[in-house]
Amino acid sequence: MIPVPVPPVPVKRLAVIGVGLIGGSFSLDLKRLGCVGEVVGAGRSSANLDVACQRGVIDHVAASAAEAVADADLVLMAAPVGAMPALFAEIASVLSPKALVTDVGSTKQDVIAAARTALGGRARQFVPAHPIAGAENSGAEAARHGLFSGKPLILTPLPENDSQAVNRLAALWAACGARVVRMAAAEHDRIFAAVSHLPHLAAFALMDELAGRPDGDNCMRYAGAGFRDFTRIAASHPAMWRDISLANRAALVTELDAYLAKLQHVRSLVAAGDGPALEALFERARSARRHWQATSTPLTTDVSSDNPA
Amino acid sequence: MIPVPVPPVPVKRLAVIGVGLIGGSFSLDLKRLGCVGEVVGAGRSSANLDVACQRGVIDHVAASAAEAVADADLVLMAAPVGAMPALFAEIASVLSPKALVTDVGSTKQDVIAAARTALGGRARQFVPAHPIAGAENSGAEAARHGLFSGKPLILTPLPENDSQAVNRLAALWAACGARVVRMAAAEHDRIFAAVSHLPHLAAFALMDELAGRPDGDNCMRYAGAGFRDFTRIAASHPAMWRDISLANRAALVTELDAYLAKLQHVRSLVAAGDGPALEALFERARSARRHWQATSTPLTTDVSSDNPA
Repeated sequence: MIPVPVPPVPVKRLAVIGVGLIGGSFSLDLKRLGCVGEVVGAGRSSANLDVACQRGVIDHVAASAAEAVADADLVLMAAPVGAMPALFAEIASVLSPKALVTDVGSTKQDVIAAARTALGGRARQFVPAHPIAGAENSGAEAARHGLFSGKPLILTPLPENDSQAVNRLAALWAACGARVVRMAAAEHDRIFAAVSHLPHLAAFALMDELAGRPDGDNCMRYAGAGFRDFTRIAASHPAMWRDISLANRAALVTELDAYLAKLQHVRSLVAAGDGPALEALFERARSARRHWQATSTPLTTDVSSDNPA
Repeated sequence: MIPVPVPPVPVKRLAVIGVGLIGGSFSLDLKRLGCVGEVVGAGRSSANLDVACQRGVIDHVAASAAEAVADADLVLMAAPVGAMPALFAEIASVLSPKALVTDVGSTKQDVIAAARTALGGRARQFVPAHPIAGAENSGAEAARHGLFSGKPLILTPLPENDSQAVNRLAALWAACGARVVRMAAAEHDRIFAAVSHLPHLAAFALMDELAGRPDGDNCMRYAGAGFRDFTRIAASHPAMWRDISLANRAALVTELDAYLAKLQHVRSLVAAGDGPALEALFERARSARRHWQATSTPLTTDVSSDNPA
């Protein structure tokens, strides 16, 4: 946990690039807290930005990310990670030297690389973050107060970040109710490859395997609750998960290799009819699952915070 | 669907071998329907059998499966599939030539093989079945009326079965509200390897992989709802899934090989950074998952009906 000043230093002008569930909910929380003077939003969908204005999620619509960022003292990059390189490039020339820039991306090393490429020395103004919150719904319509309450907010500060800027951002997220945790970007990406990105790809793979069979629909007629839960995340957004897969490629390949090796081991035990070894493996898995269930802080929503802007 | 006579021919004496959720609920349904004269139960746990008597799930406790089966005109084998060979052997010498024997096992070819081995020519009295119902809870305590209402009941009759016996069993299950479906045992085992057994092993494998790491607990601190749902079935009963894995070995190895090949393909796409191919695969998976969700009859419980007796 990072010690945080309370209350946080107020924000004069917040620019939200991608006013979806995450960016919009952050804005709503700061507004309710009285921590922000005005909020300007930018994004690809003007219909979504209209909704955001009507709901009071933002105060103004900017015609572009560059226009939103001009004069902002806090910039929240809440677009899908695949859009980050172009957005950083767009804002680089208009960013105030005093502005604090942050993001909500599900992957961190690639966003940091994009920031360094586009911003150069001013990447020190960028403090990377990942709120572990999300929900079935997306867009400004889904934004709501309290989304981050009790949820982890992971900061992966850069060596060149100003510590006061890091603490200021931590204080803002803490004021939204988030449990602020700090770790290295590489550790973040490795952890989420294991507990989020791999399960998503494993669920996509199972559904694609069945969908490609002539009798797939007939098989799935008999699928029950185990199948339903295992494959729920295979209904996740394809473009978003393409971006995440590419952005976290190295860590994800490592996880896929470990999982493939484990599954191959399971396959060999089944083929050999090794009942005791299978039972021991299932017992270890069940014990770990029960331990996790008993000790984890319930996250009622999904771990990904990428949200189509 | 099999045409069924309504009402079914009543049962004089039902023997339930393994008075758990499934066997007990079947008994309760027949009792409420007035379709059974008396019910005698047998099982490994005398405490469970006492609960079954107290709750009116059964009328009498037998000291053994053989004792329960003597004089029974319907025998329901509701023990875990791994226990079936010994139980068939135990009842072989006392089984009335007029009795109808059935089961509720999650796998069919192995139970049929066990019946043929133990019963010889009298295996024609055995009509294999698998009700697609189950729940988080187990034992006689969990048995309840209406568990099978609207759920599939799969019959995999033997060539030597008497068609009147098959129709009688179908009528009894239909009277319990089940949707009776008939298919070949091999097709049953192939389908459930794909939509139930493989997902269970894939979930066990992920949990065992993480549990075996020094930093596994730390990683899982950040796991969210996707992980929670994907791994829920990794808390399933180890001995039961050992039995299922061994019982359905051939079909399960085929499914594991297909899944391993698909995951290897996904791994190669990630490693190659092939965004368009990844997005197309995710899109096919999402489309199939949404189609399944929209068209499937909701099964609020798990597909396995194996229940520790």
